[in-house]
Amino acid sequence: MFEFEDRVEFPERNLDILTVGEMLVDMISEEYGDSFESRTYRKFFGGSPSNIAMNVKQLGARPLVASAVGADGLGHFLIEHLKEAGIDTRCVQQMEESTSMVVITKSRATPIPIFYRGADYQLAYTTELKEALERTKIIHFSCWPLSRKPVRQTMEEVIRDAGRNGVLICFDPNYHPMLWEKGEDGALYVKSILRHVDIVKPSEDDAQRLFGPDTPENQLRKFLDLGVKLVILTLGKDGALVSNGKETVKFDTLAKDVADTTGAGDAFWSGFYAALVKGYPIRRALKFGMAVSAYKLQYMGAVVDLPKLEEFEQRYRI
Amino acid sequence: MFEFEDRVEFPERNLDILTVGEMLVDMISEEYGDSFESRTYRKFFGGSPSNIAMNVKQLGARPLVASAVGADGLGHFLIEHLKEAGIDTRCVQQMEESTSMVVITKSRATPIPIFYRGADYQLAYTTELKEALERTKIIHFSCWPLSRKPVRQTMEEVIRDAGRNGVLICFDPNYHPMLWEKGEDGALYVKSILRHVDIVKPSEDDAQRLFGPDTPENQLRKFLDLGVKLVILTLGKDGALVSNGKETVKFDTLAKDVADTTGAGDAFWSGFYAALVKGYPIRRALKFGMAVSAYKLQYMGAVVDLPKLEEFEQRYRI
Repeated sequence: MFEFEDRVEFPERNLDILTVGEMLVDMISEEYGDSFESRTYRKFFGGSPSNIAMNVKQLGARPLVASAVGADGLGHFLIEHLKEAGIDTRCVQQMEESTSMVVITKSRATPIPIFYRGADYQLAYTTELKEALERTKIIHFSCWPLSRKPVRQTMEEVIRDAGRNGVLICFDPNYHPMLWEKGEDGALYVKSILRHVDIVKPSEDDAQRLFGPDTPENQLRKFLDLGVKLVILTLGKDGALVSNGKETVKFDTLAKDVADTTGAGDAFWSGFYAALVKGYPIRRALKFGMAVSAYKLQYMGAVVDLPKLEEFEQRYRI
Repeated sequence: MFEFEDRVEFPERNLDILTVGEMLVDMISEEYGDSFESRTYRKFFGGSPSNIAMNVKQLGARPLVASAVGADGLGHFLIEHLKEAGIDTRCVQQMEESTSMVVITKSRATPIPIFYRGADYQLAYTTELKEALERTKIIHFSCWPLSRKPVRQTMEEVIRDAGRNGVLICFDPNYHPMLWEKGEDGALYVKSILRHVDIVKPSEDDAQRLFGPDTPENQLRKFLDLGVKLVILTLGKDGALVSNGKETVKFDTLAKDVADTTGAGDAFWSGFYAALVKGYPIRRALKFGMAVSAYKLQYMGAVVDLPKLEEFEQRYRI
């Protein structure tokens, strides 16, 4: 049970957050358009595990990324980018398959990504990864590394060993059928692993894709009934509704200017994690999440320059 | 036996050339560099089957392309590009997998491509494709559609039915281990299908990757011994050496200014095919191949504007 006024008690560890999953190149069109008319594309560093790692590092926490990229020029680009951010890359595996890529057209409507998955779903359960699970307080992953084999088997071992090691297990249930192995019921699989998960942060769209349309309160209940201990349901400009099964608390958005929503969810996770490992109670850690997300929303890009965590306290009167 | 002074006798058909294989998006870096430092990439229409189809159409022959793209924005882009060139797209299949892509860095050394293969290797043996094989004089394919299953099975049916229908079978043995299914002996497979093939056009590098290093004359012999009837071994600026097993003829290059070598091999095939179906003897058809290749080399891009075939006759004194 996660009481809102309680801190999360972590064992003594020399890492704070281990993010596991996809490192990607995002190829984003320069011009706007819905059907890939754009002739030029710009490559960006992508994937929420590394975005969260870079954020929490800036906020003052100790991250590690476990991911698989290709033994190719684009994999090299991703690894160098992490290194420049001062992040340990010992758990970044280089595989024969090409570095995974997503091609996206800048669109004023909903952009339709085209997925090129290669190395990301080859992530293996290595000695380095096993050791990292003994050294961390929190693990974070999304639906990406669950959506295909063989990385799914790796994740099942990661989740099992995280549980054995007393690691806080946090999951972004960003389920989308487009990402999933064809012919499988991805929603069913995602629901089946929730019993191993401590904290989830679905959007309303995520919840709807998993459970069908329903009220926010009912969606919270479905995650709780499947065994999650704390559910953070994000409601866009209406903030977030958070429940521990006993109490449901509404958090208002702290965002004023919205320049770009890319990476706002990862910014939330980052502020929340950095505050939890600093020893803030859950209610305040959630406010830090709202604050870091609001800060990121002012700027373009998935990962922006962030001040230290303490600065958010004054700036957003937490 | 293909005598140099003979024409190839074709049955009466309403198509000239059916090209079968990959349609691709090439994403090419804007800046030069060997390790994908470039931030911006430009998308191009790619894949030799469609390049050859667009060339022969301009030269006055009747092409058809059989290929598989994704049911996505990039697949749409490729299909529209073919339609704008006036090419029938009835044999372009749209699949669930993403449109295949190659990311290339512009390099002054040898560029190292990163392959993202999706829809291209899903090409199915459809009724449309089977009908096209009854309507064409020539089929053309490269190692791309042999390198993976399930398209390889499709190609085996295509080759079998082409043989039954009296279609001239032409093959670009551009073998490269990077392209091949991991764990398979691609060179062995390529050699095993040569007995079904009438004409091949290897470069010296292609021959070396298949047979190891040897003299041009010995490389010609190896293809002939495996059952090919006419071997066109290209030697870069030294032209080409062509053998029908009885006679070996040297063709000098007709190129003067070389702006860009991309697509020069496809331009050769295009001129050769267009001349063959016009009824020119093999020796002259090969000269047309050299001429169209030389013309293309003057300009940037894989497919350039071409005059009608007749104009090459005067321009290059064929």
